[in-house]
Amino acid sequence: MKLASLKNGRLEKRGRDGALHVVDRALTRACPVADFPTLQAALDDWASAEPALKALSQRLEAHEIRGIAFDPRNCLSPLPRAYQWADGSAYVNHVELVRKARGAEMPASFWTDPLMYQGGSDSFLAPTENIPAGDPKWGCDFEAEIAVVTDDVKLGTGPEDAMTRIRLVMLVNDVSLRGLIPDELAKGFGFFQSKPSSAFSPVAVTPDELGAAWDGRKLTGALNSYLNGEMFGCPDAGTDMTFDFPTLIAHAAKSRPLGAGTIIGSGTVSNRGPDGGPGSWVSEGGRGYSCIAERRMVEQITGGKPVTPFLKSGDRVRIDMLDTAGASIFGAIDQVVG
Amino acid sequence: MKLASLKNGRLEKRGRDGALHVVDRALTRACPVADFPTLQAALDDWASAEPALKALSQRLEAHEIRGIAFDPRNCLSPLPRAYQWADGSAYVNHVELVRKARGAEMPASFWTDPLMYQGGSDSFLAPTENIPAGDPKWGCDFEAEIAVVTDDVKLGTGPEDAMTRIRLVMLVNDVSLRGLIPDELAKGFGFFQSKPSSAFSPVAVTPDELGAAWDGRKLTGALNSYLNGEMFGCPDAGTDMTFDFPTLIAHAAKSRPLGAGTIIGSGTVSNRGPDGGPGSWVSEGGRGYSCIAERRMVEQITGGKPVTPFLKSGDRVRIDMLDTAGASIFGAIDQVVG
Repeated sequence: MKLASLKNGRLEKRGRDGALHVVDRALTRACPVADFPTLQAALDDWASAEPALKALSQRLEAHEIRGIAFDPRNCLSPLPRAYQWADGSAYVNHVELVRKARGAEMPASFWTDPLMYQGGSDSFLAPTENIPAGDPKWGCDFEAEIAVVTDDVKLGTGPEDAMTRIRLVMLVNDVSLRGLIPDELAKGFGFFQSKPSSAFSPVAVTPDELGAAWDGRKLTGALNSYLNGEMFGCPDAGTDMTFDFPTLIAHAAKSRPLGAGTIIGSGTVSNRGPDGGPGSWVSEGGRGYSCIAERRMVEQITGGKPVTPFLKSGDRVRIDMLDTAGASIFGAIDQVVG
Repeated sequence: MKLASLKNGRLEKRGRDGALHVVDRALTRACPVADFPTLQAALDDWASAEPALKALSQRLEAHEIRGIAFDPRNCLSPLPRAYQWADGSAYVNHVELVRKARGAEMPASFWTDPLMYQGGSDSFLAPTENIPAGDPKWGCDFEAEIAVVTDDVKLGTGPEDAMTRIRLVMLVNDVSLRGLIPDELAKGFGFFQSKPSSAFSPVAVTPDELGAAWDGRKLTGALNSYLNGEMFGCPDAGTDMTFDFPTLIAHAAKSRPLGAGTIIGSGTVSNRGPDGGPGSWVSEGGRGYSCIAERRMVEQITGGKPVTPFLKSGDRVRIDMLDTAGASIFGAIDQVVG
């Protein structure tokens, strides 16, 4: 099934979390969920919520419920705010490139020990909300990623059990301020100001809805990013993912339990080129990139200096994934800077 | 007024957030809050909640409401889970000592640019809940700190405005796994596994309740830490705080807004000695320390090697602050390792 949190400004107290809706497979119609007003409420009691949501989903799909027209512009992120957003860097190729771009060496252990940072989760952007422009010197960039939402995960859970705790899958734009990263990381406490609010896809999808694209550990399919209408990248999310989601969840749960509604991100999806290198432009037949920083790195390698500027006011970023029939699975993240 | 979140396991869906109660000044009686079942619900709509909570608090204080007996053992942390926990290192003395202890240099900019990390906020420990023992090699330590809870804070808010957004003050035990920190920080993404679940004081207190101890920017008063019944430290929270809370909030809000219920921590409270050095033991007339790591550092300086072991199973940590009449302001964090 597919779930969305629609804006409900009238309900002041509930407005921050939106109103949970079940959405049909084609992303055309939606209906509210009486017993679970918010997605967090459903995740807090998933054993009860899942059958109720499934029944609703089947009735909506069978047109036994008419529902309302579904418009992604009315969506908040599926969890408009969350108790945890922990983002991995599972596509180590991306980490290696970004490090190179800022002249930093990558330790060999990065291929065996997952990188993960604790992100801010109190104020996510809506999927079609503007990205605050900020100071141009901050070097605003997008990062197209996959994320999963977990149920409660016990302290010390291993990957095999973690696999059974994944409840939802969605897309992310992990907005990054490249200009603030070097100084912030040099302080040793990780990202803070350099990672402003992220945005998620209009709908979150249960793993069973994904069919063969979901193998219990990772999602397969091209993650399409567009900048100002042109395709910027279409790497396959199932390729070059060094650490799968159960491994990332187990990493996060090593020393503490994870609460229901924890969001675990894959990090920027990134494929190597056929030669094992960083790949090439989409217009040259390559898979392109899921963030501007990677593209700039390749420009530096091939032409001596980065050319593509970071995001500026008015730029538009679109992130989407299509099923085998060409239909959007999660709805598109579609944001303008400004 | 003083607020607590009592365990309410019977209400399954609400059980994760506890039941908001107003507590009397003496921490002897409490009464539930009908219109705002959880502290987060009150913070989400503080303009409405504040007068309601104040009226209830006054009636409880005047014995117009009898209430129930207040027992800190029935408390969850005031926010049992939060949308944000961002911890500063405002007592730079602590940072300098801990860095020295692991042989790392501290950049001079740490005295002018606040350090802050994004902490996990999905699963806080209750104030009297056991600290999971973990692997002894992880080097479990406590850190006694002050924290504030904010209302919504706009992106780019400066310290003057941030001062008006502080709603509650409380104590924290920011549990730290010293053995995991060096390797984790070396990876460059900040703390994750090395910062397991924190615990907060049984009650959170509004700034107006603190009288002269709160100057709008920081809390004055000895923060008492006890290890196995012996005083370990009593540094004054109002002394040597290089960055006050409004400055920490403004730092956090530089590139994104902060949601209501954001918790901002001071970092380990730490006073310099009279000679400007790291201070001395409580038993030697000094202010002692708010974490074991500092004490070990001083042992290394004075005796050539650290002596005090990190926490082991069965150890008991107690963190408390008393008012001028000797009564506990926030109730005590009182945890056993095990």
